[in-house]
Amino acid sequence: MAGTNAPAPRWTPVFERISDDKRRRVLESAKAAFARDGFAGTNVNRVAAAADISVGALYKYFRTKDDLFLAIIEESHALIESTLARIFAAEPSFFGRVEAILRAAISSSRDDPELVRIYVACTTEELSPLAERLSGSIETISATQYSRMVAEAAASGEIAPDVDPAVTAFLLDDVFLMIQFSFASTYYRDRLRLFVGEAADDDEAIVAAALAFIRRALEKRPS
Amino acid sequence: MAGTNAPAPRWTPVFERISDDKRRRVLESAKAAFARDGFAGTNVNRVAAAADISVGALYKYFRTKDDLFLAIIEESHALIESTLARIFAAEPSFFGRVEAILRAAISSSRDDPELVRIYVACTTEELSPLAERLSGSIETISATQYSRMVAEAAASGEIAPDVDPAVTAFLLDDVFLMIQFSFASTYYRDRLRLFVGEAADDDEAIVAAALAFIRRALEKRPS
Repeated sequence: MAGTNAPAPRWTPVFERISDDKRRRVLESAKAAFARDGFAGTNVNRVAAAADISVGALYKYFRTKDDLFLAIIEESHALIESTLARIFAAEPSFFGRVEAILRAAISSSRDDPELVRIYVACTTEELSPLAERLSGSIETISATQYSRMVAEAAASGEIAPDVDPAVTAFLLDDVFLMIQFSFASTYYRDRLRLFVGEAADDDEAIVAAALAFIRRALEKRPS
Repeated sequence: MAGTNAPAPRWTPVFERISDDKRRRVLESAKAAFARDGFAGTNVNRVAAAADISVGALYKYFRTKDDLFLAIIEESHALIESTLARIFAAEPSFFGRVEAILRAAISSSRDDPELVRIYVACTTEELSPLAERLSGSIETISATQYSRMVAEAAASGEIAPDVDPAVTAFLLDDVFLMIQFSFASTYYRDRLRLFVGEAADDDEAIVAAALAFIRRALEKRPS
């Protein structure tokens, strides 16, 4: 969009000139590999083979494995931004938004578990130098949007007036993030099951319980 | 302890016969390497060199790199169990316990960030087959203890009687875990800072805000 500081893309101009279909194949193969094998365990030769291109071609599209990984993470930022924009436009009320975000956390994890698995990989210590090279971060989007959402609801009297918007946004995101992890990653799905048993398969029960918890934590009380 | 089903140790009998000092050196070197480089990135030759032993000796103590990794994760289970037992014995009230767990989440992460970083590594998809080989799990301890703590407080009237112990335990652990991550891992520390700014250095502010959130979410209301 004109006027925004769009970062330089991670790919080369050559990648922009290939067919949509080939571009999609390259990104999907890389995403599947990073999600399954992690960054260190991903072999670019196998990514190229799965995308049905030569490894030489792959290096013409992305100069390094780092660039390929970062491109995929950054793709997910756009997705989060558009999801939140859609929810905020459709839902004027604070708790309506929280409920919609909880549902989106579950559905996005079910639709695209690989992206969430790559996010988990990206939080490991050995990848922190790589994560620091991200042009922006998922966290910047969430921190900004959730803090504003809380501050507006506190100002309008929709939630308790004395909550700290920044720490509240952090606590909300803790819950949203753990729910995303729980519906995408093998480790966190097993963890959810240990905590809640068969309710782990009952999305509505999880949404209702998390919403009730957040509602009670933040709603305005009679003074 | 007699009567418990202690799992077979990950190490060999030879490892039990070496000096305490050498045992500690081996475990500390391995912990540092796994925390910094991840599982795939850890080189056992370098672990042996850092512990001032031969790689041949290391393989006499641990048959595989998997065993060495699992031994370190399992060591942390004992730590969590004893921390929770100490808190539960010292703090009879529900919110007193929650506050003590929040403080312990921060202090344990500051005291031993490497263990938390290894935990984050252990949740990645590529390590899920390894994580499934754990004799028990941190999650089993937390799920059991927190569910019981919530159920008891609901029964005694200390918190709202209608909360679901299992899902509430999960949500509480989401917050505890994210606070642990935030005080140990580079990625999550940066995330906390994005959300709360300078308050990220103010442990007391974080504890107070999280406790207030949880207290409001769970306290009994006048009917």
